[in-house]
Amino acid sequence: MAAIDHFWAVIPAGGAGTRLWPLSRSSSPKFLHDLTGQGRTLLQGTHDRLVPLVADRFVVVTGAAHRSAVLEQLPEVAAARVLGEPAPRDSMGAIGLAAAVLEREDPEAVLGSFAADHVIPDREAFSEAVRVAADVARDDWLVTLGIQPVFPSSAFGYIHLGDPLPGHAGATAVREFVEKPSVRTATEYVATGRYRWNAGMFVARPTVLLDLLATWHADFAGALRAIAADPGRLEELWPGLPRIALDHAVAEPAAAAGRVACVPSSFHWDDVGDFDSLAALLGATATATTVLGDHDLVRVVDASGLVVPGSGRTVAVVGLDDVVVVDTPDALLVTTRARAQDVKQVVEALKAEGRSELT
Amino acid sequence: MAAIDHFWAVIPAGGAGTRLWPLSRSSSPKFLHDLTGQGRTLLQGTHDRLVPLVADRFVVVTGAAHRSAVLEQLPEVAAARVLGEPAPRDSMGAIGLAAAVLEREDPEAVLGSFAADHVIPDREAFSEAVRVAADVARDDWLVTLGIQPVFPSSAFGYIHLGDPLPGHAGATAVREFVEKPSVRTATEYVATGRYRWNAGMFVARPTVLLDLLATWHADFAGALRAIAADPGRLEELWPGLPRIALDHAVAEPAAAAGRVACVPSSFHWDDVGDFDSLAALLGATATATTVLGDHDLVRVVDASGLVVPGSGRTVAVVGLDDVVVVDTPDALLVTTRARAQDVKQVVEALKAEGRSELT
Repeated sequence: MAAIDHFWAVIPAGGAGTRLWPLSRSSSPKFLHDLTGQGRTLLQGTHDRLVPLVADRFVVVTGAAHRSAVLEQLPEVAAARVLGEPAPRDSMGAIGLAAAVLEREDPEAVLGSFAADHVIPDREAFSEAVRVAADVARDDWLVTLGIQPVFPSSAFGYIHLGDPLPGHAGATAVREFVEKPSVRTATEYVATGRYRWNAGMFVARPTVLLDLLATWHADFAGALRAIAADPGRLEELWPGLPRIALDHAVAEPAAAAGRVACVPSSFHWDDVGDFDSLAALLGATATATTVLGDHDLVRVVDASGLVVPGSGRTVAVVGLDDVVVVDTPDALLVTTRARAQDVKQVVEALKAEGRSELT
Repeated sequence: MAAIDHFWAVIPAGGAGTRLWPLSRSSSPKFLHDLTGQGRTLLQGTHDRLVPLVADRFVVVTGAAHRSAVLEQLPEVAAARVLGEPAPRDSMGAIGLAAAVLEREDPEAVLGSFAADHVIPDREAFSEAVRVAADVARDDWLVTLGIQPVFPSSAFGYIHLGDPLPGHAGATAVREFVEKPSVRTATEYVATGRYRWNAGMFVARPTVLLDLLATWHADFAGALRAIAADPGRLEELWPGLPRIALDHAVAEPAAAAGRVACVPSSFHWDDVGDFDSLAALLGATATATTVLGDHDLVRVVDASGLVVPGSGRTVAVVGLDDVVVVDTPDALLVTTRARAQDVKQVVEALKAEGRSELT
């Protein structure tokens, strides 16, 4: 299949991934790491997955501190298309800036925004959904991909599907976006069959996205367009931008205004949110230990879980189930898959103590 | 209290301590480590405990490879009294060699043999028991200290007490030494009140010990006396010595012959056999984590057990009870207190793979 005409991939490469500490650090966040053990980082995997859809039409938006690392990992992407944010402004700032740049560069552009740190093994199903979404977006919809829930997660927001979209097989209207629910509410959602996980994947014409933003945040949209018109104003205008997610700034009010469509999809998607989900992604079972890294460094007696030998040292695990051991040159984590979410407490404590060199 | 006249401390400093891997290595065994966190190694603690009883009358017997480390840790002990074994020959070789040396050096000597890697916090009760034992030994008994069992352990041999020893308050005859029993048998032993743990602490006149050895192993005793008479013959005679414990070579047959006495004692004794017993020794509880080393390197969220931060790296433990984490520069162990015995399986596997640099 050929690339989609005038379709651009926008990759916001941000987020600290504190629940993946000590692998992920503010100085070296999750997207820069090969967490699948296949020789490509999450950022590179995101790029590889999109090449068949966009050829070389990429815009990456990342923190200024990570720009050189991104360029090093993605030599195929032109340096001018790796935008460095002077400070984090959440997804609306990042994706909005890319939209403003593309609005000027390609009047026929449709952009799709895909986070740099997600994993989607089934590339064919993903591509098929994106093709449908791009087609819908050309009719001026803000389109989101809706992930089939695998279990009633309370960690994700949900998309409440509406009626089928006339003229676009495989797409529906969106009634609303709902915030992370309780497990009980999520169970009800999943039972209806009318809810999808919101993975934050949006497809739209840049002008549509920015005009929607302008409807509710006129100054925000104006500042983004001013930066695109004169990149020299980035440092002046960026600090004044609100720190807000695209979901809140645009997607939620646009859904209420009947402007959002969804392409419900069934491909497996994983945001690798913590070591439990990383273990699952790597195929960990209840009876064996999964190793991310050099197997020769790991010795196991009666244990299961995830071991990441990342310092060159031998790691021995004896008699623990569903354990998580992450070994790095300056910090070591020992926890369980069930407690993987609580790793962020360690990071918060280290930050509070001023041990920023470790976080 | 003054030192005991002509009483000599013999410290066999051997044993690999594989269940304390990766802290204890064949290149740096358990007795060279400060496992109590009080600034003195187990060897130094053994020395300190005996100084009030012997003043400077020490003989240490250790592997040739560890002789310089022993001298460094015990600068108070004359180099000539730190004997290096060309090869390990178990406790009979080590203690017998010291006995043969002392037999020539001090005809009135009584020796007490105390392993370099045990912990006895109650020094007063220990001293009192040794004073009684030395007194009994002058009447040509082979005397052993009998440890009051704290629980029905299947990890120790037991001493079966006989009748009180006439003329020696606080001492009894020994009916027999019994090998490590099952927990069930140990429970029966403990219930009778007539059994004590055998901690391998023997007190005797050197000539008595060697003559007893000569009764059952004449060549062995002869070789030890020949080495003492001409230390130049050590390399020639040592390799031919049997590899046998003093318990089997002398104590068991001597007990059968009615030559062994016991001083039943109530001091707390710990052979720090594995990380579970080390955790208990350090006061670990079910609700808190005990740190052996620099507390500043450890971050804990809802965990209990033992953490040994030994590489300078930060160690974070989240949501695990009774866990054991031992961090060293080249190897890391993660296990539980309940599985602490199985650490030796890791060491055996590493040895089998030829990874001797790690063991």
